[in-house]
Amino acid sequence: MVVTARPSYSRVKTAMKALQEREDVELQVVVAASALLERYGSAVDIIRADGFPIAATVLNVLEGEDPRSMAKTTGLGVIEMATVLDAIRPEVVVSIADRFETMATAVAASYMNLPLCHIQGGEVTGSIDEKVRHAVTKLADLHLVSHDRARERVVRMGENPQSVYVTGCPSIDLAAEVLAEGHKARNFRHRYRGVGTEQELDNGYLIVLQHPVTNEYEASFQQVTETLHAVRDFGVPALWFWPNVDAGSDGTSKGIRVFRENEAPSNIQFYKNMEPEDFLHLLRNSIGILGNSSVAIREGSFLGVPAIDVGSRQSGRDRGSNVRSVGYDRTAISQALREWLPSCPRSPDFLYGDGKAGPRIAELLATLPLRSEKCLAY
Amino acid sequence: MVVTARPSYSRVKTAMKALQEREDVELQVVVAASALLERYGSAVDIIRADGFPIAATVLNVLEGEDPRSMAKTTGLGVIEMATVLDAIRPEVVVSIADRFETMATAVAASYMNLPLCHIQGGEVTGSIDEKVRHAVTKLADLHLVSHDRARERVVRMGENPQSVYVTGCPSIDLAAEVLAEGHKARNFRHRYRGVGTEQELDNGYLIVLQHPVTNEYEASFQQVTETLHAVRDFGVPALWFWPNVDAGSDGTSKGIRVFRENEAPSNIQFYKNMEPEDFLHLLRNSIGILGNSSVAIREGSFLGVPAIDVGSRQSGRDRGSNVRSVGYDRTAISQALREWLPSCPRSPDFLYGDGKAGPRIAELLATLPLRSEKCLAY
Amino acid sequence: MVVTARPSYSRVKTAMKALQEREDVELQVVVAASALLERYGSAVDIIRADGFPIAATVLNVLEGEDPRSMAKTTGLGVIEMATVLDAIRPEVVVSIADRFETMATAVAASYMNLPLCHIQGGEVTGSIDEKVRHAVTKLADLHLVSHDRARERVVRMGENPQSVYVTGCPSIDLAAEVLAEGHKARNFRHRYRGVGTEQELDNGYLIVLQHPVTNEYEASFQQVTETLHAVRDFGVPALWFWPNVDAGSDGTSKGIRVFRENEAPSNIQFYKNMEPEDFLHLLRNSIGILGNSSVAIREGSFLGVPAIDVGSRQSGRDRGSNVRSVGYDRTAISQALREWLPSCPRSPDFLYGDGKAGPRIAELLATLPLRSEKCLAY
Amino acid sequence: MVVTARPSYSRVKTAMKALQEREDVELQVVVAASALLERYGSAVDIIRADGFPIAATVLNVLEGEDPRSMAKTTGLGVIEMATVLDAIRPEVVVSIADRFETMATAVAASYMNLPLCHIQGGEVTGSIDEKVRHAVTKLADLHLVSHDRARERVVRMGENPQSVYVTGCPSIDLAAEVLAEGHKARNFRHRYRGVGTEQELDNGYLIVLQHPVTNEYEASFQQVTETLHAVRDFGVPALWFWPNVDAGSDGTSKGIRVFRENEAPSNIQFYKNMEPEDFLHLLRNSIGILGNSSVAIREGSFLGVPAIDVGSRQSGRDRGSNVRSVGYDRTAISQALREWLPSCPRSPDFLYGDGKAGPRIAELLATLPLRSEKCLAY
Repeated sequence: MVVTARPSYSRVKTAMKALQEREDVELQVVVAASALLERYGSAVDIIRADGFPIAATVLNVLEGEDPRSMAKTTGLGVIEMATVLDAIRPEVVVSIADRFETMATAVAASYMNLPLCHIQGGEVTGSIDEKVRHAVTKLADLHLVSHDRARERVVRMGENPQSVYVTGCPSIDLAAEVLAEGHKARNFRHRYRGVGTEQELDNGYLIVLQHPVTNEYEASFQQVTETLHAVRDFGVPALWFWPNVDAGSDGTSKGIRVFRENEAPSNIQFYKNMEPEDFLHLLRNSIGILGNSSVAIREGSFLGVPAIDVGSRQSGRDRGSNVRSVGYDRTAISQALREWLPSCPRSPDFLYGDGKAGPRIAELLATLPLRSEKCLAY
Repeated sequence: MVVTARPSYSRVKTAMKALQEREDVELQVVVAASALLERYGSAVDIIRADGFPIAATVLNVLEGEDPRSMAKTTGLGVIEMATVLDAIRPEVVVSIADRFETMATAVAASYMNLPLCHIQGGEVTGSIDEKVRHAVTKLADLHLVSHDRARERVVRMGENPQSVYVTGCPSIDLAAEVLAEGHKARNFRHRYRGVGTEQELDNGYLIVLQHPVTNEYEASFQQVTETLHAVRDFGVPALWFWPNVDAGSDGTSKGIRVFRENEAPSNIQFYKNMEPEDFLHLLRNSIGILGNSSVAIREGSFLGVPAIDVGSRQSGRDRGSNVRSVGYDRTAISQALREWLPSCPRSPDFLYGDGKAGPRIAELLATLPLRSEKCLAY
Repeated sequence: MVVTARPSYSRVKTAMKALQEREDVELQVVVAASALLERYGSAVDIIRADGFPIAATVLNVLEGEDPRSMAKTTGLGVIEMATVLDAIRPEVVVSIADRFETMATAVAASYMNLPLCHIQGGEVTGSIDEKVRHAVTKLADLHLVSHDRARERVVRMGENPQSVYVTGCPSIDLAAEVLAEGHKARNFRHRYRGVGTEQELDNGYLIVLQHPVTNEYEASFQQVTETLHAVRDFGVPALWFWPNVDAGSDGTSKGIRVFRENEAPSNIQFYKNMEPEDFLHLLRNSIGILGNSSVAIREGSFLGVPAIDVGSRQSGRDRGSNVRSVGYDRTAISQALREWLPSCPRSPDFLYGDGKAGPRIAELLATLPLRSEKCLAY
Repeated sequence: MVVTARPSYSRVKTAMKALQEREDVELQVVVAASALLERYGSAVDIIRADGFPIAATVLNVLEGEDPRSMAKTTGLGVIEMATVLDAIRPEVVVSIADRFETMATAVAASYMNLPLCHIQGGEVTGSIDEKVRHAVTKLADLHLVSHDRARERVVRMGENPQSVYVTGCPSIDLAAEVLAEGHKARNFRHRYRGVGTEQELDNGYLIVLQHPVTNEYEASFQQVTETLHAVRDFGVPALWFWPNVDAGSDGTSKGIRVFRENEAPSNIQFYKNMEPEDFLHLLRNSIGILGNSSVAIREGSFLGVPAIDVGSRQSGRDRGSNVRSVGYDRTAISQALREWLPSCPRSPDFLYGDGKAGPRIAELLATLPLRSEKCLAY
């Protein structure tokens, strides 16, 4: 099980827990890439605190501001992951979604003849993630997907139908737990160090998460600036979360820093990282989520939280009725904030799962026969 | 255009020539991996002698005898290729077939947002190549395939039908030239330094090419030994070509060396490398080809040369009527040598192309609009 | 000529200029490591703006917060530098001082049999730099040192006395130019984007530069916090410059960020980078410099600027009469600020050179015979 | 304890044994580089068979035939060694002699703040080894040297005299054991697979070991050819051992292969590897040793075996009375074989140790306080 970033961990936590509880499985967690870096919020500490033993850490993120550093980060990831996989010799390697560490893990596992299980294949988004996700599907031997349309796509790509299982997305499991706990007050904000003006949340607040879009990294600065203006102008208290590491993240980060210096927005507080449960509680109780994170579309649909999706990063992703899309434009974003948040129906949508993906994934990994060789099914 | 090994060069030489002749295209050749290594026959020298300018060389092959070295070679290839692509900034990156350098090139180009053209996608073989070929398809933006069935598979994998072109395989172009020259005598053997007993070729001879099968590398030694016994017992003069670099190549190489020391086979001469044209002339005039090289299936079918395919390396590959398959077993191989070579019909089969793929590829690369972003077509 | 960081560039700029002006020398500049990174102030842009052609850029800085990332950064630097040196094939490789990129360059050049010239060998400081500087001396073929004591040390280490030249340190050349320009007003501050309260400089100001000390990286946070308190308490306007990339730089950076958030110091303005001449003007006109940068000891002595050296980073470095040392302690730092700055004599000291090192270095590189083989001299 | 090649293992085996026998020390063996490669004789198997537990293996040798591959191998070695050292966290890292893996280990340990012990520093040879050995000395914290002259050099290089100990070279310990066993017959040759004509050893035989000289790698082919002719012409049975991996080893290997094919020398048998004890027995009973291996000078002097040293590889190395030097010239080599072997006195010389270095090294490593920081001693 390779965990490479904050959102990756969030997505598989219930599966990891279900695996750890089984006596017939030994779980080995490898933590890589931005999950190790303090400036992106050290997911590694959260993982350890959650009681998961960490078999190895992989340091592979090259500093830089251009696509070359993404390619080299992936290459170094392959080299390092080969060392780790050779040392721990897992029976199956589990890799998640579509990040560049996912690609590195998949390549290393494939050449080392280790069975590869891919979680969250068959979905459609935009950007480089699109290429990576499907390439990983073609390297994987077992596919645990979120929904029927994803399964259909994986099978049409030539994968053996008997190797593709709809489990739902494990990230929804956490959302289901949070939903089950209800609206109960959680006094957790003191645990996190936000920067900027402290916000009062009792009368409604907005969540913002905007990642750089990698094929447009030079535009990241401008894109985030549009969103910042719209959020400031909206006036409602906002909790803004820092982006992941990616080519262009410096553009996004810089946009945020410059805006803070120049505009000192009084209704925005910035956070680096948060335990997934706490984040989902915040999301569940918010008046809506803005940006381009997939959490708005995935967990957001399950929780029935109004979402405004900015730009191309999620274009094409299967979505429920809670999502409205806008371009990188402060006027359009402002309008959507004013109009969509109050009008969106807050009913749950089970598109990405029913909240029981974790145990299903654990059961499949524990009981399926695993092999690394495969053929196209047609 | 990235050339990474002897057979890769052979497969794209006519396309390279057609590109170089165009005034609207600047060809930049990157030579990587085993194409640089003397012990696998320095393809780089042949490429230079053929008049192609070499923009960069990439040294990325790690010594070793296990799958870990293949993974690390791929990872280092990504790192190095990112440096090269950043320096030469091509408008399109062309990568061929399914070797691990193909994968490295594809990953680097994808993360660097460079349009990627993949030649020979959509085919079906066995082994790790299978995973790599289709993963590269999912990273590529333009697909130039050998035949209709390959096109059909690429499209079913979700690639935009308008990005997939049947050009035929450019390796067939060379075979077509050789066929056009007819049976004329070529006194080229003095140019190559074979080892072992000099063979008299006038009364019929066999070609042998057996690569290690990477997921079975420990068995390489045994597998090649079976073939060696069968060839020795067959008694007919045989020209044996050394395998490519791959995990397990040391197993295969060692099998050959040990057999030579112990058995001193008088009817086998060993060669390291040969210019593609010379090899195809030899193949054209041989009584048949034995081993697990794709050349037996591809060029062999066009030339109508009887082929005996050993083991799993080519299983699943689309094949013509010249091929018979056997297992890793000296008795079965001996029987096939005795029975199939005389009975196989020597008629050409245009399955892999009509000999005009090179100019077609050049025309498409020169005239198509190229972009690096794509979506699944469904 | 390999330039790897902001201070490295500052140190060799006049030598680069003198080399570029010669007709018998072709200067090729390779920019590596933190010199490329925006968050450390992109020296690469300054170098380009100064009219130097950049032959290649090397991206090798791994993100991370521990010594492992420094080691891997060095290893990746060797790999990448080998590619660059192979491509540009210089007659001599010039490497500066003692950073980890210096080590990477030296190792790559040595194994590639390229003559290596080391600038600023033979000096004594503390920390890992100490090991690296002398190891590079043992890899180098030509040594251009700052002063007689450095020359003496290099010769005692077994280097051939005829390969060691006292040129003075080229960083002093810039200081000499600045000194020659005198106190003339320069309205350059608008060119740099400082953060924090704008400071009025007319009535005296302090310069602060504090780098993490790599063998004590966990303590970086605490160390910088002591200095921050002392500077805030001192009350005099202060211009604070961000540290270089290094293991622990995140500790130092975080210390600064946390202090700013919590204490909002009204007398400190923070800068990322500055053209060397502008910085030296600022330094020349300041009431003193605080921290652990070598600029305080080197350029500071030539300019006669009072310097307070904090902690172990510069311990052992040859120093003039302008320097007073203190520990990581806000009380001691405060006392030194109050007592040493007014009492220190502001007379220049030519310990590190007379301001003509650049042309001397250029002349030696252009005229000396260069070879890569050497023996111990005894 | 990092073991990177066949001769490195031989040199430290008794120290490893003495360490393993101590209860106050936990020995962790890291096997790297050519020690893992079958075509250089897998030292790793011998090490395992000798009962040493292997903590990690490091695969870092890049294929290639030029200095670039040596540099990249070193860089990759640093990256990989950082992973290993981070995983096993030794109290002290022991590195041996002057190979490129020695450099990689030293750089990784230094940046990771791990105390570094260097064995065999302070000696003088020729070639790139010279630079590497002394650079490693400057990175090391503890120096265990072979003899007084080596100690003197290390101290003059500025190392603290209290960190430099004369232990003798542990390679001599094995020679001492062999000498103690006397001339007793050992029927060990059946254990090794030589190639070429089986030699009868009862009436005197020659040992040959010739490595490529890395700064002259293009000449390797020619150099080894001269030696091959001289040995063939000498007529006495000769046991020839293959060279280590190095830039140019393909030149040397090819020289040997070509000579064998063309000349089929009847008095030479070729070996790949041999357990050190067996080799020393062979050496002890031979009429002399030819080539450029340090074993001729080191163990050879202790055993009193006549040695003919070819070329520049060992130039400058401290040597006893058993050595005569010649150039790369078949006539000169032939003359030396005829004249020096019978006339050289066969008396032992304790220049490189008294045979008790292993326990001395173990005692020092177990009892000395170890730290990674240091300063020049003057």
